[in-house]
This record gives sequence, structure tokens and C-alpha cells, in this order.
Amino acid sequence: MEKITLIQAREGNLGDRLKLGIITVSDRASIGEYEDQGGPAILEFFKEALLNEFEVNYSCVPDERNKIRDELIHFSDVLGCDVIVTTGGTGPAHRDVTPEATEDVIEKLLPGFGEQMRAISLAFVPTAILSRQLGGVRGQSLIFNLPGRPKAIRETIDEIWRAVPYCVDLIGGGYIHCDKTVCDDFRPKSAIRK
Amino acid sequence: MEKITLIQAREGNLGDRLKLGIITVSDRASIGEYEDQGGPAILEFFKEALLNEFEVNYSCVPDERNKIRDELIHFSDVLGCDVIVTTGGTGPAHRDVTPEATEDVIEKLLPGFGEQMRAISLAFVPTAILSRQLGGVRGQSLIFNLPGRPKAIRETIDEIWRAVPYCVDLIGGGYIHCDKTVCDDFRPKSAIRK
Amino acid sequence: MEKITLIQAREGNLGDRLKLGIITVSDRASIGEYEDQGGPAILEFFKEALLNEFEVNYSCVPDERNKIRDELIHFSDVLGCDVIVTTGGTGPAHRDVTPEATEDVIEKLLPGFGEQMRAISLAFVPTAILSRQLGGVRGQSLIFNLPGRPKAIRETIDEIWRAVPYCVDLIGGGYIHCDKTVCDDFRPKSAIRK
Repeated sequence: MEKITLIQAREGNLGDRLKLGIITVSDRASIGEYEDQGGPAILEFFKEALLNEFEVNYSCVPDERNKIRDELIHFSDVLGCDVIVTTGGTGPAHRDVTPEATEDVIEKLLPGFGEQMRAISLAFVPTAILSRQLGGVRGQSLIFNLPGRPKAIRETIDEIWRAVPYCVDLIGGGYIHCDKTVCDDFRPKSAIRK
Repeated sequence: MEKITLIQAREGNLGDRLKLGIITVSDRASIGEYEDQGGPAILEFFKEALLNEFEVNYSCVPDERNKIRDELIHFSDVLGCDVIVTTGGTGPAHRDVTPEATEDVIEKLLPGFGEQMRAISLAFVPTAILSRQLGGVRGQSLIFNLPGRPKAIRETIDEIWRAVPYCVDLIGGGYIHCDKTVCDDFRPKSAIRK
Repeated sequence: MEKITLIQAREGNLGDRLKLGIITVSDRASIGEYEDQGGPAILEFFKEALLNEFEVNYSCVPDERNKIRDELIHFSDVLGCDVIVTTGGTGPAHRDVTPEATEDVIEKLLPGFGEQMRAISLAFVPTAILSRQLGGVRGQSLIFNLPGRPKAIRETIDEIWRAVPYCVDLIGGGYIHCDKTVCDDFRPKSAIRK
């Protein structure tokens, strides 16, 4: 189940055309037993936060390590996504293997992503420490895992994204231009496009 | 040196009969040169925090990776403990190998356990960052490392335990019913037994 | 490009003669295109914070995993440094390999170092989560990675160092005696030299 959505640039955009990826990991959503809510919540964030023109590649896969891994590789190596986010499958249960699949494909682990996402969620629920979310780099793609529930997704991505544009600069991806009223991202002055 | 303690259910218990494990890791305590204080502090927490009927399996082993590992495997695979906690051996010294032994046996690392335990202890001492404590899952057992000193044990377990009952639900262990006045644990509403 | 600096003990010193190591990791600084600012900032901290007599071994290497690794091994195994700090090369870019080289040589990872350094920097910039800094132990040497910029170095080392003296005690290195007005380090009472 793959889908591409194209979004036009907004007023004031100075950024590049981006390719973004959303992979929903869920046994039930992948067979249509359940309507994916995580993927749409992430797409909604992208629409609110970005001034760029961008294309979102979406896919929904079951909780199987090989399938998640293959999709991450496809999104990174073939589609050339600047940023790929997953939703679902990061808990301690035996079927939860999204972090394992992500570790399989990343070349550099960025431990701060998991640490900060857990720290953010811990302000809402003590069970935040059960999440095994992580982030890392593969080639010119930044990849990170988000929680499954839309509320928890927005609590974390709204904050974490502040570091994403500069990260993508550093790994050679496109220039991300945020709507500052939604996401107050940070770049050193010398890296800001004017 | 192994020992089993049986504790009766308390009023209001809706939980299952549990099997818990405490492994004290200490060269000196294991040869009787020193009286273990960590193990009893953990048992005391269990008595205060749990309404369940439970059995505690206790063992004291020296700071040897193989012995700690074998005991963890025995407590998980043979005794079938829902939760196994260790105390001692998590520092930077060369004899401290409890985290190594724990990593040897867990199938899923839960990085939030170590992160949060260090963050909690950091409010008390700056040397909290020297602790290498970790947590993870083996089969249907949740395993995590606690500090060695009773004071530090209670500072961490009282807080960390808030995530334990739901974690044990997710990995297929028994239902843990906490005394809310001691430990304000969290489960999603749909997971609460009534 | 190696250099040794000798610093005399200050009044009130009860500590041992120390060997410290500073390794600056930078392609440009290593060929003289750029003047290293990170190394001198760390040396300045040592002079302010320590009462000990100490020798600082300094080296500047390019962003190459093998060269960083070999220098770390030399500083630990041959020079016998009690503490070795690196500066630079901890970001997500492809040339940034200091954490990889550090992981190659340490025998025990101390995850609290990276976690706390990122948490400290996060109070200043949201991109702190992009840093992959880590710390660990090799033989009797404590090794950890610092950021590249002098301001970020001082924000982190001034705080992190509070745990360093006791860590070095535990791994069998020299006794570090801090100027308490600069660095409020912590040791259990029984470990304080008088």
C-alpha cells in the first residue's frame, strides 16, 4: 500500500523541493482492519510546518523486521527521501520490531533522538520509558521512529523537528524551510538561506 | 545462596500471582564477608508497593559475568519470573560487569530504563552519570539493573516502577496491581482490570 | 602535531601528578588551514579547575577513524593518560567519525556521559540532539568526546567534570584534586583524601 502526495510551496519559501517518507508499521492497518491514524497525523504536521514544495511517499507495512527494513532502504536508496519517519512498533512487545529494522539500515545512530523523544513523552506518561524509538542517518536520509498515537506523535515531532533542517543540511539533503510560527528550528547564522 | 520468600495478597488485590527475582551482585556479599543490604531494600519495596500475592526468588552472586548471566537465564527461563531486578556492579570499575551480563541475556534493550534511572540519580549526585544501568526484555521477563546502595535503590525503583506493570502486560507476564498510595503506576484505561 | 605542556601544582593540592590528553579532531586544523580553538579551551579549563601538577599531551588529527583510534590507543596504552578528551567530529555528517573511533577503543561504555552532555547543550540549542558524543573506559583511562566550539566545550566540561575525579579513582588512575570554586566535584566521604 504505497501512495504519493504532492504539496505546493507556501509564500516565502526559500527551500528546495523535498522528498519525505512516512512508513506506518502496523499489522492491523496493513491488512485494512484498522484505519491508519499515525501516518495522516505526520502528513498534517508536514503541511503545517513546511514552506517547501514537497512530495510525501507513504507506505503501510506489517510488524515484520524484513518488510520494514526493505521499505526503509527503498525510501532512502531508490526514492531518495531527505527525511523518513516511521510510526508504530516501538514498544517492548514481541511483535514490536521497528527499532530493530531501523538499526539494520542506519549507518550512523543519533542517540539524542530517542533520548529526547522519551524525555518529552515522560512529561505526559511514566510509560514513556518503554519506547525504544531511535534516529539515525543512512546516506543522505535522516530516519527516525515516532510513536503510534497521533497525540504522542505531535507531542514529539513538533519539538524534535527543530533539529531536523540543520541535520539534513549536514548530511547533504535539501534545504528545509520551516514556518517559524509552527516550528522554531535552529541553524547557525552562516547556514541560513536568505 | 538462593532463597524463596512468599508474600500474601493484600486487600483489594485484582492481580495475578507473580514471580519476582532479586539478584544481588557483590563479591563480598556472595562469600558472606558483608551483609547484603540491596536485596532486602528491594524486597521491602515489593512488599509496600504490591497488592498481589507473590513469590520472590533471591540469589547473591559474585561480580562475574558468567555467573550473573547464568542466574538471569535461570530466573527467566526456568523459574519464569515476571520481573527480575539486580543490585550492584553497574559502575565503571573493572569488576563491575552486571550491565554486560544483562546485555548478554536480553532480547530487547529498553534504553529508557537506564536513561531515566541516571536522570533521577543525577538530582542527588553528579556521579550518577557513571552508572551503566540498563533494562530489557527476555521472553516474558522484564529485567533491569538497580544501584547498590539502599537509598539509591529506593530513589530509582519507586519512580521507575510506575512503568513496570504495563510493560509486563505487554510482554505477556502477570497482571501487577500496585498500591496507588505507594506507586502511581500507569496503564491505558482499556488495560486496567476492574 | 604533538605537544606536551607541564603545569605546576597549585596551593592546597593533595592530588597525584596527572597525565591528561587532548585530541583535536579536524581535517582543517590538522593541516594548519585553521587554528585549533577547541584544544586550547580544554587546556584552559584544566588550568582553572585542577590543583594537581599535571602534564597535558596534545595532538591534532584529521577526521579519519583509524588515525583517531590509533591516537586514542597511544594516549591510553603508551602515554598512560588518566583522562583523554577529544574535541570535534561528533556530528551527523559523513566525515564525523570521532564517536566511532572512540567506540573502537573503549572497553566499557558510560552512556551517562553522552546523555548528560546532550541534555546540557539542549538548554542552549535544539540541535544538541544531533551530537553523538560518548564516554567510556579503556584500561586506566577515562575517555570522552567534547563538542568542537569553545563555548559548547565549556558549557559541557564544566558540568561533566564533577563526576570525573571519582570515576578515575574507580578505574585506578591518579587522584584528581579540583579547585572547588571552579568545579564542585563529588566523591563519597570515604574516598576524599585529607
